Amino acid sequence: MKKIIIGLDAMGGDNAPQMVIEASKSLLLEKDIDILFIGDREKLTGHLPEDKIVHAPSVISCSELPEDAFRKKKDSSIAIGTMLQKEGKIDAFVSAGSTGACVMFSLLTLGRLKGVRRPALGIFFPTKSGNFTFILDVGAVTLVKPYDLYQFGVMGAKCIEKLTGNNNPKVAILSVGEESVKGSPLTKEAFDIMKKSKLNFIGNIEGHQIIEGISDVVVCDGMVGNILLKLAESVLSTFKDVIKKTIDSSIWAKMGGALIAGALRREFGKFNYEQYGGAFLLGVKGVTIISHGRSSAEAIKSAVHTAASYVKEGVNEYIEETLIKDENVDQSPDSLSN
Amino acid sequence: MKKIIIGLDAMGGDNAPQMVIEASKSLLLEKDIDILFIGDREKLTGHLPEDKIVHAPSVISCSELPEDAFRKKKDSSIAIGTMLQKEGKIDAFVSAGSTGACVMFSLLTLGRLKGVRRPALGIFFPTKSGNFTFILDVGAVTLVKPYDLYQFGVMGAKCIEKLTGNNNPKVAILSVGEESVKGSPLTKEAFDIMKKSKLNFIGNIEGHQIIEGISDVVVCDGMVGNILLKLAESVLSTFKDVIKKTIDSSIWAKMGGALIAGALRREFGKFNYEQYGGAFLLGVKGVTIISHGRSSAEAIKSAVHTAASYVKEGVNEYIEETLIKDENVDQSPDSLSN
Repeated sequence: MKKIIIGLDAMGGDNAPQMVIEASKSLLLEKDIDILFIGDREKLTGHLPEDKIVHAPSVISCSELPEDAFRKKKDSSIAIGTMLQKEGKIDAFVSAGSTGACVMFSLLTLGRLKGVRRPALGIFFPTKSGNFTFILDVGAVTLVKPYDLYQFGVMGAKCIEKLTGNNNPKVAILSVGEESVKGSPLTKEAFDIMKKSKLNFIGNIEGHQIIEGISDVVVCDGMVGNILLKLAESVLSTFKDVIKKTIDSSIWAKMGGALIAGALRREFGKFNYEQYGGAFLLGVKGVTIISHGRSSAEAIKSAVHTAASYVKEGVNEYIEETLIKDENVDQSPDSLSN
Repeated sequence: MKKIIIGLDAMGGDNAPQMVIEASKSLLLEKDIDILFIGDREKLTGHLPEDKIVHAPSVISCSELPEDAFRKKKDSSIAIGTMLQKEGKIDAFVSAGSTGACVMFSLLTLGRLKGVRRPALGIFFPTKSGNFTFILDVGAVTLVKPYDLYQFGVMGAKCIEKLTGNNNPKVAILSVGEESVKGSPLTKEAFDIMKKSKLNFIGNIEGHQIIEGISDVVVCDGMVGNILLKLAESVLSTFKDVIKKTIDSSIWAKMGGALIAGALRREFGKFNYEQYGGAFLLGVKGVTIISHGRSSAEAIKSAVHTAASYVKEGVNEYIEETLIKDENVDQSPDSLSN
């Protein structure tokens, strides 16, 4: 069997390239996966096999505007990783670098899958139920139409089917009330489209219901998704900081902390968003997985495995096939006006 | 000095009327505040002074659609409380009942302050800094225009000035990037309006920056605000549940929990959203404070005190005065088109 080739951005992320080098130890032993490490050869030589390094002299920082980076940094690890995908030299690209830059390079270099109007960034969000909910778009695409939300639902569902084996994933719209009349003009129109579609559409859910894990896929516009994701992460990290500070506050608390730390780590470990390793850019002609800037070596390994499954299961082909055959396309007045 | 009269919904909230009766013990001793308890006389008699009860036979449940409740339940505690405000028999109304119903009755019965295009529901959100950030709109009003967001900023800032003594509150727009070019058409246009205004406008902030407490006021459309508020509450309550479950998981964890519980409560107590007692409906001709359905007696007392300060400080008069004199009104093309 032909190995799946994953391009791994060795320079992206707060702990790059260390966590990538750390992750490489077990990744290089994989039988079905081949890795190309994309980054500054000088910094990587001695830590990674020479023949697995693709030289990319520059790095895009998270503070750079993606559009500036796209114009100026054609020799960056993200630019070269995306170009290798375009040229078919790698099957997928994984980066813990700038999300905005990864999205922009992918959109502009790879183009869209057939039938896709607007790509979306999806993320597996941990829930109380122990399952993950796939939320999209969290990528800050703000000019979405009702039909785009419907397509996000289709792409999310097809992705879940292939990656988790759940053959009939539930799809919901994130809104401000469960009734179909609640929400913005965007969500209300999307509700009507999705209700008539072949999706296993369960209706609207509200902000607090995400964490209940009642839907497998949740769609929203990228602005809502981006804000909620960042807020949820910040609440979680604040919460962890408060616990740490509390444990350090006195000798009694330190003793208590020592007794409880293992169990706490185990319970909070269930909410580990690193399990899938990163966000998926769905709808582009390629496989781009964007890991969190604070990713550990474990998260990078997860992202590589997820990318490999995505390629192996043919998620993109399945999405394209579904959308090309989609009877909804021509029926949607919105799709005609665009 | 004339006492401030607060109408208190005795039937609203998960623990009504118990938590209201509990709160009444100290509230009835207040020198500057007089309370009228609005609710089912039969259920309240014996627990509250007879002459302080205003009979309202029906209750609006949180599952009722506000528009249905508005048509059918003119004898509910929320309807009667709002009507007493309209008639000037109470200075403010506090309810832990249905948010949607409180908003709808207030909007339709009280009307808007002069100069206000669209009322907004604001909430004090606890932050890491120990201060609160006032976020509005969290009330699920979805058809806002850029100029409405600007007015939310003005109303929020005036409210903060009077209630906290901060004379130059910072105002930010919740968006998906700090640069003015980031965001939706709504936030981008609002950015331009606010930049030119007299507000102490600090620009855009992102979802994770709310909890940093870098802005005193944060504006967003009601859909975003509603979703993020519900999400944040659910994340927080989920984590509290996880901690409780962890502490109960073994004898060691129980011992650890016992040693650490006091300190944990103290630290998490800093994030107590009950400090102000509820959400403010800004921009209506009246004072409506809507407490959380799960409010304790303490939260109800806080809400009554906040309502009294709001009346005493003349927040509404200050908002009206500011907006009437606002030079921005006629300059905004958006205000002309509406």
